[in-house]
Amino acid sequence: MRLPDDLVHDNESRILFAVLDGLGGTTDPSRGLTELQAARTPVLDALAARSDTGLIVPVLPGITPGSGPGHFALFGYDPEENNIGRGVLEAAGIDFPLQEGDIAIRVNFATVDGEGRIIDRRAGRIPTEECERLCEIVSTAVSIPGVEFFIRPVKEHRAAIVLRAPGEGLEEGVADTDPQVAGAFPLEPVADHPGAEKVALLLREFLIQASGPLAGAGTPAYFPLLRGIAKYRVYPSMRERFGLRALAVATYPMYKGISRLLGMDVHEGARNLEEQLEAVRSGWDDHDFFFLHYKAPDARGEDGDFDAKVAAIEDVDTALTGFLALEPDVVVVTGDHSTPALMGEHSWHSVPVILSSPVARHSGMDRFDEITCARQGTLGTFPARHLMGLVLGHAGRLNKFGA
Amino acid sequence: MRLPDDLVHDNESRILFAVLDGLGGTTDPSRGLTELQAARTPVLDALAARSDTGLIVPVLPGITPGSGPGHFALFGYDPEENNIGRGVLEAAGIDFPLQEGDIAIRVNFATVDGEGRIIDRRAGRIPTEECERLCEIVSTAVSIPGVEFFIRPVKEHRAAIVLRAPGEGLEEGVADTDPQVAGAFPLEPVADHPGAEKVALLLREFLIQASGPLAGAGTPAYFPLLRGIAKYRVYPSMRERFGLRALAVATYPMYKGISRLLGMDVHEGARNLEEQLEAVRSGWDDHDFFFLHYKAPDARGEDGDFDAKVAAIEDVDTALTGFLALEPDVVVVTGDHSTPALMGEHSWHSVPVILSSPVARHSGMDRFDEITCARQGTLGTFPARHLMGLVLGHAGRLNKFGA
Repeated sequence: MRLPDDLVHDNESRILFAVLDGLGGTTDPSRGLTELQAARTPVLDALAARSDTGLIVPVLPGITPGSGPGHFALFGYDPEENNIGRGVLEAAGIDFPLQEGDIAIRVNFATVDGEGRIIDRRAGRIPTEECERLCEIVSTAVSIPGVEFFIRPVKEHRAAIVLRAPGEGLEEGVADTDPQVAGAFPLEPVADHPGAEKVALLLREFLIQASGPLAGAGTPAYFPLLRGIAKYRVYPSMRERFGLRALAVATYPMYKGISRLLGMDVHEGARNLEEQLEAVRSGWDDHDFFFLHYKAPDARGEDGDFDAKVAAIEDVDTALTGFLALEPDVVVVTGDHSTPALMGEHSWHSVPVILSSPVARHSGMDRFDEITCARQGTLGTFPARHLMGLVLGHAGRLNKFGA
Repeated sequence: MRLPDDLVHDNESRILFAVLDGLGGTTDPSRGLTELQAARTPVLDALAARSDTGLIVPVLPGITPGSGPGHFALFGYDPEENNIGRGVLEAAGIDFPLQEGDIAIRVNFATVDGEGRIIDRRAGRIPTEECERLCEIVSTAVSIPGVEFFIRPVKEHRAAIVLRAPGEGLEEGVADTDPQVAGAFPLEPVADHPGAEKVALLLREFLIQASGPLAGAGTPAYFPLLRGIAKYRVYPSMRERFGLRALAVATYPMYKGISRLLGMDVHEGARNLEEQLEAVRSGWDDHDFFFLHYKAPDARGEDGDFDAKVAAIEDVDTALTGFLALEPDVVVVTGDHSTPALMGEHSWHSVPVILSSPVARHSGMDRFDEITCARQGTLGTFPARHLMGLVLGHAGRLNKFGA
């Protein structure tokens, strides 16, 4: 028996699952406060007081997750067992119809000099239209017998490649070709185990075929850097596992991609919290689970801008009122990981979580922040992958286990 | 090496392990309190202040356990690996001498109309004497070549069946035949995998042989509904695993059954806490571990009666004084799961735990309840199956692990 999957039954409950990306922070020594401690959050504070609260550990103590593992864990997928590659996330993010066994690759178009040395790893962040043109050039130029080859623009200098050859046993395990610094030559695609030799060979062939036409496509010459080379496998959907008709309302492609990989319906077009609220409202009757993704705390944390992250948190605090007015039965507010402004990057720090339902224990806590969740939380500190079990329990969607 | 089992040594310590069934609750929004918060519990409060305290998660976050998994976890048996069937619990509860491989089944005698439709799934809760008569009728009527067949009365309309056919490979995996509603026909015994076909076939044959005599045994006719069809396997006893001579002092058959399955001695006859105290006192010299089971908080919680659950907790608080006067070296007070009156059923909510010993840390907490355990507990929130390790450690019964 698999828990909680094998205990799931359906009901009429609605679950709002708000992921404030990079929500957690750490103490800025000059202020003696985390971003959440510094933020004025009357809505979250009041919600936390009448909710179960605690801290979640995204993967394992000390382990900093990327967005993939961070979200997979939140949605109840073991992030170690389901470590999804960046290439797959990129392809899913643009809604490319991936098939089991596809090799997906994230591409940066770089500019290179006459000898092939990298001038700009991002080609000056060319407009997306220019990226579309480059993808067409590559698409026309490249032909590899026995392999279907797709290249699609993503945004600015970024694109996605998919290799498809059912039955050919394509395997991931080819290192990035991006040397990470300007002035260096792109690396060769090299397999890190024998099973990945075929993919490495195909990518070397691809680079040979594409490099000429791309060199002629601009001045200076363009050249594709390959990253996050990963094999796609089908994950059991949230519908299959938990019986949930899930709607994702995110503004960034990557989070839409993650949602698609887990079988969620994905709303398109919402650009801000106001439009996201409208999208949730529109989907209310046809869905049980609403994944609201809010990017700003992570983005401002990565900028290293403490005050801007505080402001981003205060903004969503205000906006949450509209979502709560929909009267979801269960409300989760948390993050996929911490992004302390002090560090300017993702971190491993545990993430505060609010779990509200008609049968939640009332923490009675006076503020919603990392330190108060540790001191006054009712749920303790626990692995993020167990959050979905709690959510389903609070939603009344789980049968009793055992006699 | 298996922990803690392989580190166990014997000593003279006495462990009182008090399970207040369904102890945990959740916040009643109209009161802003849980049952434990509302209860006046001076004995538990004082004990908690000078004890280690915390919260235990019965199975996994969000998973609501039945009594079997709840108790198995408390006694250090992984509840997922040892998910015991209801039929086995029922048979063990009446002290039926189960053997490895037996198929045990819980029976409800229902009443049916002339066409076989169920009138009352509990046959009006017939007296136990009537159930004994029906079991004798069935026992005489049923004969299946190659299979030993036992049917025993339990209480009122409830009975237990055991099928025994060593070497015949009887397997569990036959669905309940109880349609759960009056007005419906009983279901056929259907195997949910090929290995269980033989048991399904035997049970269909049993129903054919039993139905005639049972129809003639009363007006309206009786018919047996089969539930919790489960295979018995022998569990390593608490004596084998932990070296403990355990005495169970419970008033309800099911908890005696669980205790027998784990090799405890089972006291018979105690009907209330006073008699349970006397039973513990009588067994003091010959046992190391005293499982005291107190049913009332669960029963009142299932009634949805907040005030009655509060009263049940206050009653046991007073009664605990007598048990503490025996001066056990280690005292545990906890529950097998939560039964919030707000929900009127078992729940997944974590359960407060007190662990008292001469070497416990003193939490210094001011009250014993769910919220205070979360805020001021010394043990944090942890899986219930790890509690026995702590108990054995505090009892001085574990060797050091490693050099």
